[in-house]
Amino acid sequence: MQAIEHVIVFTVDDANTVIDDATILIDGDRIAAVGRTGEVAVPPDAEVIDCEGRFTALPGLVDTHNHSSLIRGVDENLDLVDWLPVYDLEHRTCTPEDARQAYRLGYMECLLNGTTTVQDMHRFMDQAAQVAGEMGLRVFLAPYAADVPPYDFFETSESNERLIRDWHNSFDGRVQVEAGIEDVFYSSADMYRRALDMHERYGVRIHTHGPEHAEEEATARSRFGMSIIELLRSRGFLGDFLSLGHCVPISRSDMDLVAEAGASICHCPISAAKLGCGTAPVRDMMAAGVNVSLGSDGPIDNNSMDLFQEMKVGSLMQKVRYADAKAFDATTMLRMATINGARTLGMEHEIGSLEAGKKADVILISLDHPSLRPVCWNESRTETNLLWALVFATQGGFVDTVIVDGATLVRHGHLTRMDEREILDDAQRQGADWMRRRNAAAGRILAPIRD
Amino acid sequence: MQAIEHVIVFTVDDANTVIDDATILIDGDRIAAVGRTGEVAVPPDAEVIDCEGRFTALPGLVDTHNHSSLIRGVDENLDLVDWLPVYDLEHRTCTPEDARQAYRLGYMECLLNGTTTVQDMHRFMDQAAQVAGEMGLRVFLAPYAADVPPYDFFETSESNERLIRDWHNSFDGRVQVEAGIEDVFYSSADMYRRALDMHERYGVRIHTHGPEHAEEEATARSRFGMSIIELLRSRGFLGDFLSLGHCVPISRSDMDLVAEAGASICHCPISAAKLGCGTAPVRDMMAAGVNVSLGSDGPIDNNSMDLFQEMKVGSLMQKVRYADAKAFDATTMLRMATINGARTLGMEHEIGSLEAGKKADVILISLDHPSLRPVCWNESRTETNLLWALVFATQGGFVDTVIVDGATLVRHGHLTRMDEREILDDAQRQGADWMRRRNAAAGRILAPIRD
Repeated sequence: MQAIEHVIVFTVDDANTVIDDATILIDGDRIAAVGRTGEVAVPPDAEVIDCEGRFTALPGLVDTHNHSSLIRGVDENLDLVDWLPVYDLEHRTCTPEDARQAYRLGYMECLLNGTTTVQDMHRFMDQAAQVAGEMGLRVFLAPYAADVPPYDFFETSESNERLIRDWHNSFDGRVQVEAGIEDVFYSSADMYRRALDMHERYGVRIHTHGPEHAEEEATARSRFGMSIIELLRSRGFLGDFLSLGHCVPISRSDMDLVAEAGASICHCPISAAKLGCGTAPVRDMMAAGVNVSLGSDGPIDNNSMDLFQEMKVGSLMQKVRYADAKAFDATTMLRMATINGARTLGMEHEIGSLEAGKKADVILISLDHPSLRPVCWNESRTETNLLWALVFATQGGFVDTVIVDGATLVRHGHLTRMDEREILDDAQRQGADWMRRRNAAAGRILAPIRD
Repeated sequence: MQAIEHVIVFTVDDANTVIDDATILIDGDRIAAVGRTGEVAVPPDAEVIDCEGRFTALPGLVDTHNHSSLIRGVDENLDLVDWLPVYDLEHRTCTPEDARQAYRLGYMECLLNGTTTVQDMHRFMDQAAQVAGEMGLRVFLAPYAADVPPYDFFETSESNERLIRDWHNSFDGRVQVEAGIEDVFYSSADMYRRALDMHERYGVRIHTHGPEHAEEEATARSRFGMSIIELLRSRGFLGDFLSLGHCVPISRSDMDLVAEAGASICHCPISAAKLGCGTAPVRDMMAAGVNVSLGSDGPIDNNSMDLFQEMKVGSLMQKVRYADAKAFDATTMLRMATINGARTLGMEHEIGSLEAGKKADVILISLDHPSLRPVCWNESRTETNLLWALVFATQGGFVDTVIVDGATLVRHGHLTRMDEREILDDAQRQGADWMRRRNAAAGRILAPIRD
């Protein structure tokens, strides 16, 4: 048993309960109890972390749309449709070792920033399974599968199925495999059928891209005679097993289709702004009943993976989009980064909040940073300004401790199980090499998908 | 003499020169040389920091619009015009000790995030002068002066003039005092005259608020029969001695007035979004020839002071506003946070870039963070993807070392001259007390300024 004592807890339960002096009791991989210190019975032999009121606990953050990579800071200043062919270059040249080092570096970044669960779409994902297994974080792996010529340099339905057989539900269930699909332009109707088939036969979830840029949506309408969401529906994809990246250009009727199906949208506010897509209509999505979670979209077009920043920027973008300072308050953002993310992955009964019976995915944030002070309370000590500081004044680097499945993966801001310097140096070497190979392939750049 | 060796330098000179293996030689408070390691002659007795290629150096960042405070995370979910009367409560109740602790906490936050110069507008600024003097950072102090009834609880022209006499150009010139004015609603025409008089008699600069929210601009037009910028011009305020906070709602002709006068605009993208003001038309401002720098607007409505984040959000907001992924690239943002900030303060020949002869205001950022890796170069090693990582993937907390006027104020991420824990604990105690007094004054809240 482990006990985290004298900690300020944001439970993110249905009532958004905050406890000013709490104890979290952890039994193995599960939370045994969360309550006021003194009211939770702590066994005498429990291993105790005494937070002395100088730390706050949150549920581990959930990054529901990510693309691991070692290539960052080069595909810049491009709108999405022009960016994709440039991004393709790294897929043309990606090796299993490139992918492995990308997973090591990326998952290290996620963990250090308090992200305990990542939905990742990339290549050679057997490497991701092994890296995540060793590092201890929770991952949902959706291979980047594509087959429409000339996009024959991605994962295939076959490699996706192999990944499911080899790694789905491994490492005590922390590694989950999905059926992954790039999008309606890169992937054929047959590939969608086979993904659905994998979902039915193996019970895996499906992750793919929804409409990201208005240009894409226009091209889809001209090529398929319907919106991307309608096309997904026609292919049997709209169900509660589906999560969709982006969905920036999306009509109200398409939102209704997504909501009725119980599918989720993984909103990536930074990437959407950066790639010229604009700001997704998240308030309307939520009003339509869609579950919306947050995603970083990975190092390639963010260029970091820090859900604290994503919460802040996500809120600011919605306030601007709807010209309303009241839009997307701190509580809404915190829920998007935690329990909504859990729901996107079908895990809302297992992770996403700090409640007895759930998996022990807990992060501790040090309050010894000037931007988090002073911490003040209302008279009944049930509400605190710290809520806003967590969403609007916290850097990922303020995360001190990360616990996943009851295991401490980060302590005092550093990985406990792996040598950070070795990961950084390996990524530096491999990344520079991959970059050279990628640059050498620049002559093979394809035309943008634009009618 | 001090020598920083084997460091990647972003000089932010006119050519945006980057040196992959540089030496910065510092003589007292000035930069003696910046050049390739081996080509800069380092005296044998120089104190050497060997960066081993694992750090990058930038000019110290310049936060050109800030309001120190200990009150954060409570005036939330409000549009600017409704927010101001709530914000007023902290001014009604502010004591010199409140202000002192706000300066200690705030300047600590700025320094730890690599900000070496702050233009601050707040109260009891003799406290700010002393705190900044002791901490060692560079400040421009513009008192929050107001006199239109019932706004009689701010600074006055008299206290402003006293501050100039007592503290202007103190601490080797690191502490500069300005004539400060709240805005056209809080401050009378007479107060503007007296500010101009102080500028003329003491040679001090002037800092005030430009139009922030469209509602304010509309109220000004109805009350004064002209735009806020036109009103400032009619009061003789438009000159190269003036810097204006915000200017979110600003017409093209008003931009021309600002540009012709050589005044600068302090753009606060996060605060503008948060308070429902929207996104300032910065591309148009720059096209009109206005110098635009960055500001955090302080803890009250940001809620942090991290110019790395401000650069990223500033870029993203402009990309969305102009629906153009090419807008506001990393170089533009880095210049806004450094040399443009220096220009806003009339200091472009002294700070804002790393060049021989300038003041030694240097920050070192550790590259041992996953979001900054891998660092890659073009063949001639004159361009690097690190540029983008600095603007889009750097947390303020990655700053390892901060040097101002040649003195090392932060080393290994911590203040060298002051006890951080003491500052935090003092701010916690004083802030909680101030919050209680502020809450007790809630009955005295004024009506919003709205016609």
